[in-house]
Amino acid sequence: MLRCVIIGYGFLGKRLAKLLAAGAVEGVKLVGVASSKGYIYEESGLTLVDLPDELQSSRALKPSPAIELIDRGLTDLLVELTPTNIRDGEPGLSHIKLALEHGIDVVTANKGPIALAYDELMELAEETGSMLLHEATVGGGIPLISLKNRCLAADELLSIKGILNGTTNYILSRMHFEEMTLELALREAQMLGIAERDPTLDLEGIDTALKLVILANSLMNAGKKLSDVKIKGITGITSEAIAAAKESGMTIKLIGTADENGLRVAPKLVRLNDPICVHGTLNAVSFNFKILRRLTIIGEGAGESTISALLNDIYEVVKARARSSRT
Amino acid sequence: MLRCVIIGYGFLGKRLAKLLAAGAVEGVKLVGVASSKGYIYEESGLTLVDLPDELQSSRALKPSPAIELIDRGLTDLLVELTPTNIRDGEPGLSHIKLALEHGIDVVTANKGPIALAYDELMELAEETGSMLLHEATVGGGIPLISLKNRCLAADELLSIKGILNGTTNYILSRMHFEEMTLELALREAQMLGIAERDPTLDLEGIDTALKLVILANSLMNAGKKLSDVKIKGITGITSEAIAAAKESGMTIKLIGTADENGLRVAPKLVRLNDPICVHGTLNAVSFNFKILRRLTIIGEGAGESTISALLNDIYEVVKARARSSRT
Repeated sequence: MLRCVIIGYGFLGKRLAKLLAAGAVEGVKLVGVASSKGYIYEESGLTLVDLPDELQSSRALKPSPAIELIDRGLTDLLVELTPTNIRDGEPGLSHIKLALEHGIDVVTANKGPIALAYDELMELAEETGSMLLHEATVGGGIPLISLKNRCLAADELLSIKGILNGTTNYILSRMHFEEMTLELALREAQMLGIAERDPTLDLEGIDTALKLVILANSLMNAGKKLSDVKIKGITGITSEAIAAAKESGMTIKLIGTADENGLRVAPKLVRLNDPICVHGTLNAVSFNFKILRRLTIIGEGAGESTISALLNDIYEVVKARARSSRT
Repeated sequence: MLRCVIIGYGFLGKRLAKLLAAGAVEGVKLVGVASSKGYIYEESGLTLVDLPDELQSSRALKPSPAIELIDRGLTDLLVELTPTNIRDGEPGLSHIKLALEHGIDVVTANKGPIALAYDELMELAEETGSMLLHEATVGGGIPLISLKNRCLAADELLSIKGILNGTTNYILSRMHFEEMTLELALREAQMLGIAERDPTLDLEGIDTALKLVILANSLMNAGKKLSDVKIKGITGITSEAIAAAKESGMTIKLIGTADENGLRVAPKLVRLNDPICVHGTLNAVSFNFKILRRLTIIGEGAGESTISALLNDIYEVVKARARSSRT
């Protein structure tokens, strides 16, 4: 039975904790949940009644730093879900490093550490024989990392092109179908909780660029950093530009591209008939493989769907550990 | 080094043989290729110069039945690529059974045996500890079987909906965009080699039904047969019907569906904005998962792309055998 700890008790952390406490993945026992307020730990496994709406309302809360759970040999599997920090990746980066140093497997949805320190973290995992899985960092629950690595390992990936940000795609879709201005579509998205109060990272293309770096590094061994990406956001896109595209059977989408010319994010004209031309908050990624050629995969790139990616990665760790314990 | 034999030396067989002879998958040695005319076998491995355009033009041809290659302990991995026969699955079914009985792993693109005898073959493989991989039977190189089994194993698949036949999709797309009649679009498709001279299996929805049975059995344990599928083809679809759909932002597509109400194939109205609404010879499948919800995957469902699925399955066998030989 793998002892699992979740650090980060927000939207994803709470839902995942409930599912694991209810036995969603066989072979996994949830022993701890942590946030910046402290942690709850129960060696015999946390049950649904042990999980509060907010950690600080639990009488079992220890007001100590989460790293105690990693440091003291209390866990085999860390699920790191603290918020993405694109400056230095903290506190997630420290949590993940510490876990890997201790030979603890890590599953994460935290883009910061993976975008900023992919090569370093993978080397560390290799050294200590631990696993670092991060399907949930890009495209929510859409399998992108595992799709290439587990289903298409014998083919060669030549390029990646995708709509990787649901917020900007929602805004552009509303501008296309409802002929709204960007300002109005943004305000609507904020009211619906699709856009954040400060939408800069989405609108300026930074979020798309982070995800593109993660895809390029983990699928194409690109060794790229955020500063290697040429980035142009959607703030300059006018209703008139979209209306003109529409007249020619096209629209404008924020596209991230990784190919032999490097990594770039920019608004692009896309044919309405193109498989990648999805609307609303959907994400879509087209891979170009040497033999298969073009493969496109589409789904919700955020929210509840991300839980699926976390569960699948946790399942993969359980399977790999069961296999290695048999040998 | 796994000794590999290919039975079936048509479009796929020839291309795959060349790739394997050139070393496309590490750990695999192509030792034999066979057709109904006989076989070529070379214990030390066939090279590119050993592979003729047609088997009967090779001086090394042994005019003996292909099953000798399976029967005499000359192979570890059979790639079965004889033509699909929907009546009794032969000769592919006998080849695959014999191989599995001998503990030989099998990779196949042959829909007949998999659609007709999935449960029986899988039981046999289980008994003898052999592997039977058949990604190439549905959707060409699009990962569908492995996508669910390797990337989404912890989520629950609730239903499948898809465009699984490129020929009918080409015809319906031409009717939609060029306002052609079905007869004209069919003739064009035949001229381009997209439709066969006798297009019955495609037009009547049988090919889609076969693939649907394979998906439902291998991804949902449905235990279904071809006779369990309610099938309606596209021969009744008129230009007028498509024009009317078009006026409402829709079109007509031949859709295979597997859900709690069973399996069915029929022409359906589909929104032009729906991710599944792809055109030309493309295939598209939408899976509905319990947590992830809707995931759509799109690609070329036939031809060259199928080679990718065969290589990936062969790679998977090599990986699994390398792993089990270490234990």
